[in-house]
Amino acid sequence: MSKTKIDAYSLLKKVREQKPVVHHLTNWVTIYDCANIIKTLGASPVMAHAREEAAEMASIASSLVLNIGTLTPDFIEAMKIAAISANKKGIPVILDVCGVGATKLRDEKSFELLNEVKIDIVKGNASEIARISGENIRTKGVDSVEVNADMLNVSRWLADRFKAVIVVTGSHDIVTGKDKSYIVKNGHPMMANVVGTGCMAASVIGTFAAVEKNLAHAAVSALVCFEIAAELAAKKSKGPASFKESMFDFLFNLDKKTINRMQRVCV
Amino acid sequence: MSKTKIDAYSLLKKVREQKPVVHHLTNWVTIYDCANIIKTLGASPVMAHAREEAAEMASIASSLVLNIGTLTPDFIEAMKIAAISANKKGIPVILDVCGVGATKLRDEKSFELLNEVKIDIVKGNASEIARISGENIRTKGVDSVEVNADMLNVSRWLADRFKAVIVVTGSHDIVTGKDKSYIVKNGHPMMANVVGTGCMAASVIGTFAAVEKNLAHAAVSALVCFEIAAELAAKKSKGPASFKESMFDFLFNLDKKTINRMQRVCV
Amino acid sequence: MSKTKIDAYSLLKKVREQKPVVHHLTNWVTIYDCANIIKTLGASPVMAHAREEAAEMASIASSLVLNIGTLTPDFIEAMKIAAISANKKGIPVILDVCGVGATKLRDEKSFELLNEVKIDIVKGNASEIARISGENIRTKGVDSVEVNADMLNVSRWLADRFKAVIVVTGSHDIVTGKDKSYIVKNGHPMMANVVGTGCMAASVIGTFAAVEKNLAHAAVSALVCFEIAAELAAKKSKGPASFKESMFDFLFNLDKKTINRMQRVCV
Repeated sequence: MSKTKIDAYSLLKKVREQKPVVHHLTNWVTIYDCANIIKTLGASPVMAHAREEAAEMASIASSLVLNIGTLTPDFIEAMKIAAISANKKGIPVILDVCGVGATKLRDEKSFELLNEVKIDIVKGNASEIARISGENIRTKGVDSVEVNADMLNVSRWLADRFKAVIVVTGSHDIVTGKDKSYIVKNGHPMMANVVGTGCMAASVIGTFAAVEKNLAHAAVSALVCFEIAAELAAKKSKGPASFKESMFDFLFNLDKKTINRMQRVCV
Repeated sequence: MSKTKIDAYSLLKKVREQKPVVHHLTNWVTIYDCANIIKTLGASPVMAHAREEAAEMASIASSLVLNIGTLTPDFIEAMKIAAISANKKGIPVILDVCGVGATKLRDEKSFELLNEVKIDIVKGNASEIARISGENIRTKGVDSVEVNADMLNVSRWLADRFKAVIVVTGSHDIVTGKDKSYIVKNGHPMMANVVGTGCMAASVIGTFAAVEKNLAHAAVSALVCFEIAAELAAKKSKGPASFKESMFDFLFNLDKKTINRMQRVCV
Repeated sequence: MSKTKIDAYSLLKKVREQKPVVHHLTNWVTIYDCANIIKTLGASPVMAHAREEAAEMASIASSLVLNIGTLTPDFIEAMKIAAISANKKGIPVILDVCGVGATKLRDEKSFELLNEVKIDIVKGNASEIARISGENIRTKGVDSVEVNADMLNVSRWLADRFKAVIVVTGSHDIVTGKDKSYIVKNGHPMMANVVGTGCMAASVIGTFAAVEKNLAHAAVSALVCFEIAAELAAKKSKGPASFKESMFDFLFNLDKKTINRMQRVCV
């Protein structure tokens, strides 16, 4: 693959100008950070999970992020209601298959969501995405395990199977759209020492998807911005907590010049 | 309106000395920050939402804070149970009408709470409070939209209608009691870049209301202290995350001299 | 009691090497911090509360932490399902009796858990543990009140009664195993100004218990490491928020030399 340039900044600028409402039905562990990272980008997060309002809230939003990290069957039903509303309105639906492969419930409910509503972007770590592709993988709770598969090919097969953009996060992220795959080489190992960086990545992707129809571009741009902020933060922090704080500050202040200088994307 | 002096520090001192228990039924997004800001003030937060214990927990508390940010019908029922217990005991009940105007559910449930139990302080941003007054406003998820109403008059009408103190947060906050309105001009625009500053404001108000019978005074004093901490933090931070951390530190260390020097309240 | 040496670092090293999965059913206030402190130790947190997956998730974990801070009757049922699975697998179950003594529900459900499943470590502050021993104590929400009992003897009686390690946190922590009691004198008063240090202590204990069969040793080592990080953080912070951030950073970087130099344990 060869290096390519993408205009990640123009999408960040759009987010800051349009301030899209991003609706979430997400897990109870990282819900604050997911909301806060969206606010840090300049957008407007809303987290509403009651089935009585999930459809209406989705209808005033510009994208919908679903995350099964602390799923219950009832909660998945509310996700479906929200997703059907989002599908009707034509706004993108992002699914973070958090912890799929750890339990039967997560497997079943992930496939229910993938089959019963239109998911536009599926995001997971390598073992989660491999599981979605049918591999018999037992994930380690919500953390990735080593995967023996060629994830680039897996992502292409899945992109075709679900007519969705597939995002595989890791030290190098894969973003596979209809006819192309991108590798995002930004990011820093310190991200793995903080709970929620994966969930936040999905929320950032959802925010960029709210302002850009080419969802592969949106996902790549989102990861580039988020992970550049992480690289900058890692340089000046002493541990995972100061790293996290610093990452939010850098993301808030991120400018065009820094993004263009630091982005590392291959196609 | 003309500048006035209020003795915000004396209430902060009372909070630190009496360490009141402040009971919450609040949203799942900012629940930690709401508890933590109360602890930072020196008080004792408790978050208990089971209907089997909501009444009993309210009965050992000195004030009750309700926030509908991630409401469900069941959760509202537990709020009513807690509020009825608080009403019986005679402790103040604060309602943050978070996101009212975004969905029918939020509208209905806000009015149910306002009509079925005694709410002593109602707090919202301009579009939320306008919605409560009957304006046909569609809020942008949980973020405020521009409002065409004279909020000072709206707050007076509502204070009379619900026999409650009305708090309208914004760049200038309005606090309207039985016969008087205050404007609090403290605060900083950076507050709008962090999720939860609105929810925390309600929790701080609830904490001050636990030690002071004049609830308008309590609300004004609470906002003054919280927002002076925000101003101090904004001066020395590089982005929203370091701002937030610093705000907690400044609030913890806030002293009489700083409050008296920096407070900007009109009546 | 006389000073003793325990090899806390060797357990921390084991945690970092083995990266055990620590399953939680915990409260919604501090759930993020509980997950994040485990990640900071180098282990793998998973928070899964659906009764449909609680047993299966416990079966892939190396320890189980239960915390009743925001209990509901349904949630307690899920805890029992997870605990029965953990008991079958033979992994340790830690129960934080958060807020017991505040309401009848907390009292009833704590005893249900203690009587219906095997709890290996019970953790609480002085008034919570006194309540579990049958004292007629009304705790102040989730904060400790002064207790008139000899907690060392209370912990011994309870250790025998429930065949469990009993941990009483406070300025000096008591850890009582089958035949011995330890006093951990590490820690700092600033910990009491941050919501969640008690919950995090239980999670850290649960993580160390995942790699060490002598559960009293595990608990003592966990408290030593956590509280040394707190002491280091207190020295260089300006308030509770910078303290908390710094505590996570210090815990992440904690080394053998620092632990051996700073630990203060009596037996």
